[in-house]
Amino acid sequence: MSTPSALPSLYPVFRELLSGGLREDGYTLDWTSLGLKRERKVRATIKAKADGVFYGAELARAASAVSESIDLPFSAKALVADGARVKAGTKVVEWKGNATGILALERPTLNLAGYLSGIATRTRGLVDRVEAEWKKKRYAGEPPRIVPTRKILPHYRDVGIAAVMAGGGYPHRVNLAGGVLIKENHIAAAGGIRFAIAAARKVAPHGLKIEIEVRNPAELKSALAERAEVILLDNFEPDDVRKALAIVKTAEYAPLIECSGGISEATVAAYAMPGVGLLSLGGLTHSVTALDLSLLVE
Amino acid sequence: MSTPSALPSLYPVFRELLSGGLREDGYTLDWTSLGLKRERKVRATIKAKADGVFYGAELARAASAVSESIDLPFSAKALVADGARVKAGTKVVEWKGNATGILALERPTLNLAGYLSGIATRTRGLVDRVEAEWKKKRYAGEPPRIVPTRKILPHYRDVGIAAVMAGGGYPHRVNLAGGVLIKENHIAAAGGIRFAIAAARKVAPHGLKIEIEVRNPAELKSALAERAEVILLDNFEPDDVRKALAIVKTAEYAPLIECSGGISEATVAAYAMPGVGLLSLGGLTHSVTALDLSLLVE
Amino acid sequence: MSTPSALPSLYPVFRELLSGGLREDGYTLDWTSLGLKRERKVRATIKAKADGVFYGAELARAASAVSESIDLPFSAKALVADGARVKAGTKVVEWKGNATGILALERPTLNLAGYLSGIATRTRGLVDRVEAEWKKKRYAGEPPRIVPTRKILPHYRDVGIAAVMAGGGYPHRVNLAGGVLIKENHIAAAGGIRFAIAAARKVAPHGLKIEIEVRNPAELKSALAERAEVILLDNFEPDDVRKALAIVKTAEYAPLIECSGGISEATVAAYAMPGVGLLSLGGLTHSVTALDLSLLVE
Amino acid sequence: MSTPSALPSLYPVFRELLSGGLREDGYTLDWTSLGLKRERKVRATIKAKADGVFYGAELARAASAVSESIDLPFSAKALVADGARVKAGTKVVEWKGNATGILALERPTLNLAGYLSGIATRTRGLVDRVEAEWKKKRYAGEPPRIVPTRKILPHYRDVGIAAVMAGGGYPHRVNLAGGVLIKENHIAAAGGIRFAIAAARKVAPHGLKIEIEVRNPAELKSALAERAEVILLDNFEPDDVRKALAIVKTAEYAPLIECSGGISEATVAAYAMPGVGLLSLGGLTHSVTALDLSLLVE
Amino acid sequence: MSTPSALPSLYPVFRELLSGGLREDGYTLDWTSLGLKRERKVRATIKAKADGVFYGAELARAASAVSESIDLPFSAKALVADGARVKAGTKVVEWKGNATGILALERPTLNLAGYLSGIATRTRGLVDRVEAEWKKKRYAGEPPRIVPTRKILPHYRDVGIAAVMAGGGYPHRVNLAGGVLIKENHIAAAGGIRFAIAAARKVAPHGLKIEIEVRNPAELKSALAERAEVILLDNFEPDDVRKALAIVKTAEYAPLIECSGGISEATVAAYAMPGVGLLSLGGLTHSVTALDLSLLVE
Amino acid sequence: MSTPSALPSLYPVFRELLSGGLREDGYTLDWTSLGLKRERKVRATIKAKADGVFYGAELARAASAVSESIDLPFSAKALVADGARVKAGTKVVEWKGNATGILALERPTLNLAGYLSGIATRTRGLVDRVEAEWKKKRYAGEPPRIVPTRKILPHYRDVGIAAVMAGGGYPHRVNLAGGVLIKENHIAAAGGIRFAIAAARKVAPHGLKIEIEVRNPAELKSALAERAEVILLDNFEPDDVRKALAIVKTAEYAPLIECSGGISEATVAAYAMPGVGLLSLGGLTHSVTALDLSLLVE
Repeated sequence: MSTPSALPSLYPVFRELLSGGLREDGYTLDWTSLGLKRERKVRATIKAKADGVFYGAELARAASAVSESIDLPFSAKALVADGARVKAGTKVVEWKGNATGILALERPTLNLAGYLSGIATRTRGLVDRVEAEWKKKRYAGEPPRIVPTRKILPHYRDVGIAAVMAGGGYPHRVNLAGGVLIKENHIAAAGGIRFAIAAARKVAPHGLKIEIEVRNPAELKSALAERAEVILLDNFEPDDVRKALAIVKTAEYAPLIECSGGISEATVAAYAMPGVGLLSLGGLTHSVTALDLSLLVE
Repeated sequence: MSTPSALPSLYPVFRELLSGGLREDGYTLDWTSLGLKRERKVRATIKAKADGVFYGAELARAASAVSESIDLPFSAKALVADGARVKAGTKVVEWKGNATGILALERPTLNLAGYLSGIATRTRGLVDRVEAEWKKKRYAGEPPRIVPTRKILPHYRDVGIAAVMAGGGYPHRVNLAGGVLIKENHIAAAGGIRFAIAAARKVAPHGLKIEIEVRNPAELKSALAERAEVILLDNFEPDDVRKALAIVKTAEYAPLIECSGGISEATVAAYAMPGVGLLSLGGLTHSVTALDLSLLVE
Repeated sequence: MSTPSALPSLYPVFRELLSGGLREDGYTLDWTSLGLKRERKVRATIKAKADGVFYGAELARAASAVSESIDLPFSAKALVADGARVKAGTKVVEWKGNATGILALERPTLNLAGYLSGIATRTRGLVDRVEAEWKKKRYAGEPPRIVPTRKILPHYRDVGIAAVMAGGGYPHRVNLAGGVLIKENHIAAAGGIRFAIAAARKVAPHGLKIEIEVRNPAELKSALAERAEVILLDNFEPDDVRKALAIVKTAEYAPLIECSGGISEATVAAYAMPGVGLLSLGGLTHSVTALDLSLLVE
Repeated sequence: MSTPSALPSLYPVFRELLSGGLREDGYTLDWTSLGLKRERKVRATIKAKADGVFYGAELARAASAVSESIDLPFSAKALVADGARVKAGTKVVEWKGNATGILALERPTLNLAGYLSGIATRTRGLVDRVEAEWKKKRYAGEPPRIVPTRKILPHYRDVGIAAVMAGGGYPHRVNLAGGVLIKENHIAAAGGIRFAIAAARKVAPHGLKIEIEVRNPAELKSALAERAEVILLDNFEPDDVRKALAIVKTAEYAPLIECSGGISEATVAAYAMPGVGLLSLGGLTHSVTALDLSLLVE
Repeated sequence: MSTPSALPSLYPVFRELLSGGLREDGYTLDWTSLGLKRERKVRATIKAKADGVFYGAELARAASAVSESIDLPFSAKALVADGARVKAGTKVVEWKGNATGILALERPTLNLAGYLSGIATRTRGLVDRVEAEWKKKRYAGEPPRIVPTRKILPHYRDVGIAAVMAGGGYPHRVNLAGGVLIKENHIAAAGGIRFAIAAARKVAPHGLKIEIEVRNPAELKSALAERAEVILLDNFEPDDVRKALAIVKTAEYAPLIECSGGISEATVAAYAMPGVGLLSLGGLTHSVTALDLSLLVE
Repeated sequence: MSTPSALPSLYPVFRELLSGGLREDGYTLDWTSLGLKRERKVRATIKAKADGVFYGAELARAASAVSESIDLPFSAKALVADGARVKAGTKVVEWKGNATGILALERPTLNLAGYLSGIATRTRGLVDRVEAEWKKKRYAGEPPRIVPTRKILPHYRDVGIAAVMAGGGYPHRVNLAGGVLIKENHIAAAGGIRFAIAAARKVAPHGLKIEIEVRNPAELKSALAERAEVILLDNFEPDDVRKALAIVKTAEYAPLIECSGGISEATVAAYAMPGVGLLSLGGLTHSVTALDLSLLVE
């Protein structure tokens, strides 16, 4: 069974998000906690309250660094690794130290870890379905990668991509500067697929492949004629994908094929067919059900 | 039927989120669009692709301000007001001006508007259920308010609260400095409900009511004995809420009652009973299904 | 004799203010000190040169953290606690370590500590007067709290409030989001006290009490009719306060009463009467006489 | 009678301070004002409620720029110039436009303008005393300049210096990078006045004069022997200043003489004698009585 | 003759650099200019004092936006386009408006424009040499692209890349997230070329080509065996490049070939041979001779 | 032979530049390195590949601090001091610790150190020429100082000045607030040299000398008549400098003389004559050839 590939180290990003969260939460004037003895030392545990994939270990360590910067220090120990599957009830993180610091960082940390683990959990579910289908059909080679889109909230781009990776998915282009993806609007503005691809080839860094979105067999053929390195089949039903792949086979080269639109837990297996390299879902990151996590102070 | 109360003006917050989103998206080196003629003028429309509550009008105007700051200016006109119910197919915003600017701001704007409208839409669904129940049972007075918790991602606290309000809900405390809510951990640290309430009264600004979370009738009675102004019934089933309200009626004063835990679309009507003032749901903001919005360039 | 209540931990706020102060002071290009041997180790003491209340202990520790971040490290030891009364000549802080670091942080630290201790000192003087009056008159219950207003310089809101608390005072609302205070302008815009209170109740978080400012007995009666939880008597002479309290007693509930306007060292005792809960003074924070502090390098 | 010299344009500094003040004040979630109609247009006037020197005209215009950036725009018109003397009752600024914007910016603007005008007012009082003495004694040449020290709160260095100038005073060195001032600690570390001056001459930019603080006639003579361009007489009584000036006259060059320590409204005239070029007071900026200003909405 | 391809719009980046430059230059306390009448209107011209390629037109317009933000406004008109060749004496920009604003922005603008035009000028010289060689030898197809490396100062990455493009060059990967380039250290850490390429393929976004640096024919063969899409010949003499190209021709696919190391004005023509796609020079951006520009106020 | 005077401690400036460089380089999503084992410990050495003056020791230590802040820590040891002359092949810095951290910080550190050492190296070359000339001609007193101008890129002002000092040069005014330098534009605006000097004397801090730029003997005489403390001979040939010095000798005081314009490695010795105090070159900082440095991982 696939395990997540190496994960980016987002430690400073996590620190900034947590610090921002603390500030926004007005913790310095937390009237409810002000009477608590600041120097009390406690042990606290973060626990998963539902099955899923955990992505909060590096985050929990970053929280420890933040606790030091506000002079309410605690140490952090991850009990499971980022990307690990967990069962409801699993203890995932242990914090030890200043009680006020732990209570201040509880909410920002759980908000973030729940969100990111939610992305990882959903990704994992889709990856599992694709792998199961692959095995069932005894297909050769690698099954298609599950990848996100750019539908990620401001401030969450990098951590959102990493969360998909934690769930066994893969990155799409990081941002507009990190890849080329020609869409309908670009084609219209350029005056056709041929011109749009030529224009991108003329200015883009040489290390970027040209990817283009097509909506029907005619556009697919134009894209193949221009030797687009990656072709995205936009809103193709599984049967139409199959027909498209037949066309692709007639080309003189082997482009990478991405499917997007209409993919969900219900349909993903139907898209898992040899010849398809990538399945992208906006919902992976735009509609997230947080993994339920809670902190217990002992 | 209830309409949303006045909404906060979050214009500068929206500008910052959009600017941050643009930067993160690497739009200055958008290789795919670089060949497009920068000065082309177009008209573009944002459309809802599903029924829901729209919260993106002020945001769309803030996007226009951002477009000027990057010298790719377009104007914005909201076609429906923030908080309005929309049907699939409704045009909600019109942008006119620089094509490159519109394409650059499309993704950050839709990411934010979809997220916030998703919060508003879910809130509205819960408010509608509560109001329907109220009408059906012919209860007098105001039905309970639907309110969020502090389970909101860093950078999204204010806009998240406003999105709940756009859906007909109400704000809970803004952050730790803007309210008092005594929880289990505080009670334990203080050595009991009585001491926890006394400690909060001693330091909190005089304009803040004391709210306390109770888990059972005994704790409720202690809270009443200390005349807590607001009492949160944590994880009470509807029947237990009813019993609790009977106890509350025996008190010499009339505290405000909030229910939290286990409330969802399926159960919310059962909690809508006279005597309950507030229903809070973490899921309003921690697990959001984005409203599907798309931009069309004409 | 009253001691200050628990103080907020403003460590990161102090670090930011000190870092900003250092930067503004151009310390990296301090031509006068450039010839000094950077690695010299010294011991330095901060001393009060006048009687007062000290509020600079946590700040002095934050300065130590800043000294490490600029690679000119020294340690800090507070010799008296924040909020303590000190006599002229008292040593309040000891720093040990890098001489260049100590000289760089001397000015920003003393500027801040002198200012904050000045606020604490003035507050303490007023609190002492109120308590003396209370004792003299043998009144029962708690004397009125001394509280600040929002007349605090940008960047100094939180530390200003905390300085008042260090002097035995109490916080007022933190900011516009952390409380409701209906003033003349709001009443005019709403079309009267009744509508203004209703409007605030409709949108404000449930945990905030409604406070309203009244200028005469008629307005007081309107505020009582709407059961405003807190009523501010604006610019009432002590005798008028007495008359107002008589009116308040006729109400069916017991609102909290705040007096504001015309309160000073000379008049504060006259306002200290049972029934008055709060005495607020803009001057506590808008007109500050710094406590004289100096640093001696040994 | 002297008028203030040209004042620095601190427009962007004022914008930043006002924006920071707004943010800190939580104006986006101003629950009290939320019900007000946002688009209402009003006229408002800022009025001095005491005699003094006004320094808030450029600030008030910067507030107008901030109001546009938050989409609650109003225009600003200064009715008196920065640095002008005003009588109680004088209207100093007129704002016209969005009522919500005006109410949001009222407090940060008045907090700043009151503080800065307070500095200007106190400076003007001292300058007036010096000029009166000069006239009375029929001294020739320019009277000594009133100058501030580095005892200014973080974030307020530039505006504090400008406020002194608005009151007819002059700038001292801007910060450690903008001047050389050798103090007791530097002398001790260098091993004597001679070495301290030599060290500074070796590294400081050629455009900076060497200023040194002396505590007694012996040190003064050493400073003169090294031809220090500026000499600060630290804590000299007026009579001792006179004796020091006699020593200075014996030197082969004419250094600039600054007096510092013990100067106040009561003593300043006694220090105003030919041969003294500068009188510096920490209290000008560390202990400020705000000028009373209020805003009236019509 | 080649003209520069479309240039990125870096308007907000230029604004930030200019604002940062202004702040660093202490313009608000420009003592030398303080006496100048602030409202004087002038016309000023920026002129090239040497032949070269100009890259400062968009920058000059951004300076106009900055001048408005500091309330010292002037308008800007570019007289030649970014990327244009200019002769000594050519007027390139005209500014009209507030004299103080123009003098404040003169230095930061010229510092930036001189630096960026210096990069563009050097790039253009190399591009011209390559094109001349291509023409002379009557080679078919496109000559190799001149590209920069990551040897660009912090804060100048995007503008440095754009400056190369303004001189007729092309972008290399924007940063570590926007491309894959396997170097000696990566190969060593991975245990060989094969493993290093496999590792990169496993995690990198699908839109990124795999580029690898090789130092000799053996490594080149290994890279070809793994079908690396781009191969960088590191420090190959022109003759060795020729031999390498012969090896490349034996491969089953056609990788893109980059040469790096030892390329300069003197040698670049020798590297311009069919089969070489890219010539990269660290010196393009790490050792820049500014184009001499000056501003004249009329 | 002269050694560099004490250097400013720019540790926090270096940390910010390095952190900014890292962020810009997208190191958190370094796809090429993602497969490397993050916890591997290595030793790496930075080596000079050309003769020059090294200025990167404090920077390398700051890099160690940055590595800790991103949880990829390594230690740093400078093998030569800042300002030291180095031969090609000299090891200048040793880093030990986390391999991923070292590879991430390699590029930003070398980019900065190469640039700053390039400035120091060029400065040292000029200083050496001046000192050699001085010795050869057996002149008495100090030879003229080599100083920079304000032609330094935004974000690099302080480090650029320090780099000149590391090469044996001296600082000019730090920025507009840190000195007075009256140029042609100021003279024109003021209506002549006399008025320009008077205007500056009226507003500038007393610790700043008045420096003025003159273009011919007539202007020089006017400047002398006003007793300008420093006079800059703008674009004077060596012979004209000699004539100017003769005029200066006729004055009643001894101003400091700076030459600027047309000074280079070829001409600097000709300007090194008694009576000239300063030689300034824009090119020291606007046209920098980086010192070649490389990092080797062992």
